[in-house]
Amino acid sequence: MEFASDNASGAAPEIMAALLAANDGYAPSYGAEAAMGHVRALVRAIFEAPEAEVYLVNNGTTANALSIATCCPPWGAVYCHETAHVAVDECGAPEFFIGGGKLVSVAGADGKMTPAALARSIEATPQGFVHSVQRAAVTLTNTTETGTVYSAAELAALCAVARNFGLPVHLDGARFANALVASNATPAEMSWRAGVDILSLGGTKNGCMGVEAVVLFDPAKAWEFELRRKRGGHLFSKHRFLSAQMEAYLTDGLWLRLARQANDAAAALEAGLLALPGARALYRRQANMLFAALPRALHRSAIAAGGHYYFWPHDAALEGPDDEPLSARFVCSWSTTATEIEALLAAVRG
Amino acid sequence: MEFASDNASGAAPEIMAALLAANDGYAPSYGAEAAMGHVRALVRAIFEAPEAEVYLVNNGTTANALSIATCCPPWGAVYCHETAHVAVDECGAPEFFIGGGKLVSVAGADGKMTPAALARSIEATPQGFVHSVQRAAVTLTNTTETGTVYSAAELAALCAVARNFGLPVHLDGARFANALVASNATPAEMSWRAGVDILSLGGTKNGCMGVEAVVLFDPAKAWEFELRRKRGGHLFSKHRFLSAQMEAYLTDGLWLRLARQANDAAAALEAGLLALPGARALYRRQANMLFAALPRALHRSAIAAGGHYYFWPHDAALEGPDDEPLSARFVCSWSTTATEIEALLAAVRG
Amino acid sequence: MEFASDNASGAAPEIMAALLAANDGYAPSYGAEAAMGHVRALVRAIFEAPEAEVYLVNNGTTANALSIATCCPPWGAVYCHETAHVAVDECGAPEFFIGGGKLVSVAGADGKMTPAALARSIEATPQGFVHSVQRAAVTLTNTTETGTVYSAAELAALCAVARNFGLPVHLDGARFANALVASNATPAEMSWRAGVDILSLGGTKNGCMGVEAVVLFDPAKAWEFELRRKRGGHLFSKHRFLSAQMEAYLTDGLWLRLARQANDAAAALEAGLLALPGARALYRRQANMLFAALPRALHRSAIAAGGHYYFWPHDAALEGPDDEPLSARFVCSWSTTATEIEALLAAVRG
Amino acid sequence: MEFASDNASGAAPEIMAALLAANDGYAPSYGAEAAMGHVRALVRAIFEAPEAEVYLVNNGTTANALSIATCCPPWGAVYCHETAHVAVDECGAPEFFIGGGKLVSVAGADGKMTPAALARSIEATPQGFVHSVQRAAVTLTNTTETGTVYSAAELAALCAVARNFGLPVHLDGARFANALVASNATPAEMSWRAGVDILSLGGTKNGCMGVEAVVLFDPAKAWEFELRRKRGGHLFSKHRFLSAQMEAYLTDGLWLRLARQANDAAAALEAGLLALPGARALYRRQANMLFAALPRALHRSAIAAGGHYYFWPHDAALEGPDDEPLSARFVCSWSTTATEIEALLAAVRG
Repeated sequence: MEFASDNASGAAPEIMAALLAANDGYAPSYGAEAAMGHVRALVRAIFEAPEAEVYLVNNGTTANALSIATCCPPWGAVYCHETAHVAVDECGAPEFFIGGGKLVSVAGADGKMTPAALARSIEATPQGFVHSVQRAAVTLTNTTETGTVYSAAELAALCAVARNFGLPVHLDGARFANALVASNATPAEMSWRAGVDILSLGGTKNGCMGVEAVVLFDPAKAWEFELRRKRGGHLFSKHRFLSAQMEAYLTDGLWLRLARQANDAAAALEAGLLALPGARALYRRQANMLFAALPRALHRSAIAAGGHYYFWPHDAALEGPDDEPLSARFVCSWSTTATEIEALLAAVRG
Repeated sequence: MEFASDNASGAAPEIMAALLAANDGYAPSYGAEAAMGHVRALVRAIFEAPEAEVYLVNNGTTANALSIATCCPPWGAVYCHETAHVAVDECGAPEFFIGGGKLVSVAGADGKMTPAALARSIEATPQGFVHSVQRAAVTLTNTTETGTVYSAAELAALCAVARNFGLPVHLDGARFANALVASNATPAEMSWRAGVDILSLGGTKNGCMGVEAVVLFDPAKAWEFELRRKRGGHLFSKHRFLSAQMEAYLTDGLWLRLARQANDAAAALEAGLLALPGARALYRRQANMLFAALPRALHRSAIAAGGHYYFWPHDAALEGPDDEPLSARFVCSWSTTATEIEALLAAVRG
Repeated sequence: MEFASDNASGAAPEIMAALLAANDGYAPSYGAEAAMGHVRALVRAIFEAPEAEVYLVNNGTTANALSIATCCPPWGAVYCHETAHVAVDECGAPEFFIGGGKLVSVAGADGKMTPAALARSIEATPQGFVHSVQRAAVTLTNTTETGTVYSAAELAALCAVARNFGLPVHLDGARFANALVASNATPAEMSWRAGVDILSLGGTKNGCMGVEAVVLFDPAKAWEFELRRKRGGHLFSKHRFLSAQMEAYLTDGLWLRLARQANDAAAALEAGLLALPGARALYRRQANMLFAALPRALHRSAIAAGGHYYFWPHDAALEGPDDEPLSARFVCSWSTTATEIEALLAAVRG
Repeated sequence: MEFASDNASGAAPEIMAALLAANDGYAPSYGAEAAMGHVRALVRAIFEAPEAEVYLVNNGTTANALSIATCCPPWGAVYCHETAHVAVDECGAPEFFIGGGKLVSVAGADGKMTPAALARSIEATPQGFVHSVQRAAVTLTNTTETGTVYSAAELAALCAVARNFGLPVHLDGARFANALVASNATPAEMSWRAGVDILSLGGTKNGCMGVEAVVLFDPAKAWEFELRRKRGGHLFSKHRFLSAQMEAYLTDGLWLRLARQANDAAAALEAGLLALPGARALYRRQANMLFAALPRALHRSAIAAGGHYYFWPHDAALEGPDDEPLSARFVCSWSTTATEIEALLAAVRG
């Protein structure tokens, strides 16, 4: 009954099959293998972005930190939501790769920032004033950290603010596929058409073994990105094992199928949980993560029966009044089955 | 006829099998999986180092840069051979992770430094003189970049120099297994017993898909290393796929078998090449890399027939006098077969 | 009618005289001159800290950034008040010298943080959790940015929180002298006895030409500090011109006399301004800075007559209703005269 | 008898007078004072460079490190002579400000590099090869560290090599004035007309208290330079005391007069020393530094009589055979008098 993170899942069978196939014989290293060409072509086609440059790295922290460093000078301010992974879960990786920049928190309900709040934060950084860090970039997250999804229109409104101030936009898409299938929009509409300049396109949480694509819609900084990647220790020698994963992931809509499975599982779990007395959703669930408050007694029986998920915040205590509501995060992945959901619901019910 | 790099090989069947097995079901992420415990135990047993701490990363550049940064302050000088991978092939990764240190080249024949040359280099950095960078660490490479192997005694002599100056020693062991099987020494003798403090223990070039272990023989800086790894984007979420590789690699001597295959293949290739008229070895071949000068005509026919390897230096020209000797590097791996060697030799012979 | 900043003042006559005297003949460079020994002895005596190490630098940003970097690893979180100079007025200098740390804002009225707020901020950084930056240091400011003064007891309470979490404390004392004379405490009570580990002891704003002392009450990191200073370009060759200033500044209580003059001038200005109809103090004035709201009409006449000071925030507009209150900061320095104060008050009155 | 360094001299009377004058009354801070405008105009006129931007900093390490960082990305290689101050006397300041670049040593007699040697060094950095740092900038030094002077033609030849590879050129001119008066060239010919892009124009060693100008002949990176200066802690609040020095220094040819005095003093000292039996010049003396080998006995009597200068290298021993030649560096400054020279010569003669 594993609902702690989509990181706890393994790789989808198609991904493993691709890795096995890629292992046959010799191949050029460092991204010169044929499969990397296929990945590039797939990304360009899927995103309707024939100029885009594409690079593969091992995980989301890397994709984010390298992307942000590529569009932020060492004295830059990067605007992000207060719950953003880059701000709270990466041990300062963006600041390290930037060489000392500053992440500026933008508050906002439901894990989202509003255009007005973003504009206020940017305006609060005095420009052309040498005593202050300088406005440099905006980074958004979709699916957000609270499981909500920015629509293409919402993204476009935020990107318009950024563009207004002359700032590039990075999108942390560790769960981009989940956001995409939750919307009625195309990959292009959820990225560059909305105004996104660099995308971290997640694979790991959604059925890959460990690979993320960084998509530079404007290829002007491609070579700089390559140097940053190498220098950060992020250029794989046997790179074919990254491109094989990403190629399979993007072929025949596998990435969307996997994301849909995860989202659907979360919907089913939500329905079951919210039907319980005393249960309450914390945010609108739109993708594969569900945040809910449940009476403590329900948590106790779930955990006793082997349910695994995180309290939100993590440090809630199992001891205390039975009916006090405790908040928790439940994450479903491509591999979550109806049986697993049923088991958890049964466990919660006690 | 692939002899360009051991990076061009795939993963050994045992490694792929381990990956498939590891993919079964859910697992804790970020190194909390059971297999990481097995890896730790294996490294400790193999190296007779019950206190050692062990971390897994994706490639050799990362293992080296994180290790060196862990034992060098931002104002430190790190002494390395002039051909060292850290100095010439990592796009400044060590300096990046250190935060601006200085790699100091030590010259030396056969890809090796002598204790006297190392001592002279260290002494040339004025100590306690605030205008100079400060002596910080020594990094050695074994198997060296020219395919030679330091014996345990040679390593010990170099480490003694370092210790004399109070400097820690890092060993870049991207091809540690190849060096080990070329020697009559134990893993401990080739590392901490000789005086090595931190080891980059290579897996990728020797039959893994992409994994290196960093072994801290003194665990005092373990937590710092973990933070540096995370912050560098080098903590894998689905870490089980790193530990599965390393566990299989170190189990039942697989790593040594694979290295022996590679070394034996290089010996066979060497015998064949040096039997050719005009051929000459550049360095003593001790592991899986062979450097030889051959008349240009032989290169021409080899390359025409599909032989793939690097001139040394890379920019030699195929045009020119037939009998002029051109140097080249030939690398064998765990997967190099007798047939492949025969094919290359036939191609060279024309 | 200059009330914009204590930086607009020149150097006190005693300081200029000391510079002239120091210019006589040859002197050892880089801090080896005899005067630096006198400075060290003076600081140790004044602060009753015979072990303290003392270094001189050019300005407050440098003193702060070097001090903070000396007690914060690259992955560290540094807790500071939301208005702190290090957070908003140094263009990211602390993050640059740290190598990428994170300044964490602590809110609080009157430019001060409370022990409870500080503790909450520290606790919000998960410790031993590799995904987060790590608690590293606390930096306080006295005189605060809003002109209030922490008492020795208040400082001690904040330092106790820091010590509880094992964190060192830096004190930005760009206006330490002003805080000191505003209190009934000794230099020791306002620094190490309260729990401060490193002090930026300001000279520039209080009558020097350009010099600040960094006082390391625990000398363990003295050599590291020296290397950081040199490497940051902050070791003066003709260092005698720094030590001459600081020696004169600390001799016979000059620093206290100058600070008292500035504080007294601010008190006089405050009395005059607050007597005006519609005037209101924003914070309790305790040192040499006064924050007050005045009807716009008064600002208009003051500025028309040549009054110079900053609106707070800076971007207030002179156009608008006459009686609308606009906030402003008025700073007095050692050189502010009664005549200047009278002139400003006359100007404000129109 | 102070001949250790031009840093041991004080400030020239004209500089002190300017500082006293500048201390009168209030002045805008951070470079907004009128004198900074005069400095800018003076530099532009003297260098015939009406577009140039000019910034003042405290010392040569700062001028160099900020300048180099402004024209070198974090993954860049900077080519410098093996004896360059930036390489051996700045505790890694350039690497710190660059964020981890690599200084590449170019060998060469007399403290100079030849165009051919520079070209070879640049070519040895593989370009467009992601595993290597990338060619970024060239930094030259004039007066060189061994007291020789590049002619305008020599500078132009080196800059032509740099330009050929598309690399900007920085000139460390800590002793630019001494080089200038040793040549028959104009300031423009010794800088931008030769191809220099950024100049560190020294003041400190040549009669100032502590100020250097950085001249950006191409102002495109002026704002970036300002941010780097602030963030490095190098923007003075009471900046008028920097501009006052530089204004006086550049007015009415003071800088040239002071440099000429220093060079002439060195010529006189050289004549005296080389007339001694067993004395020999190590390099061609062209400016204010003299390197000579003298029999040990002469050093002994000089030092016994209070002569102060550095052995070259520093660690030569006073004990040993009387007639063994020991090398030393003698530096004259603007303040060196004929009497002082006579005194040293008398002391050497015993």
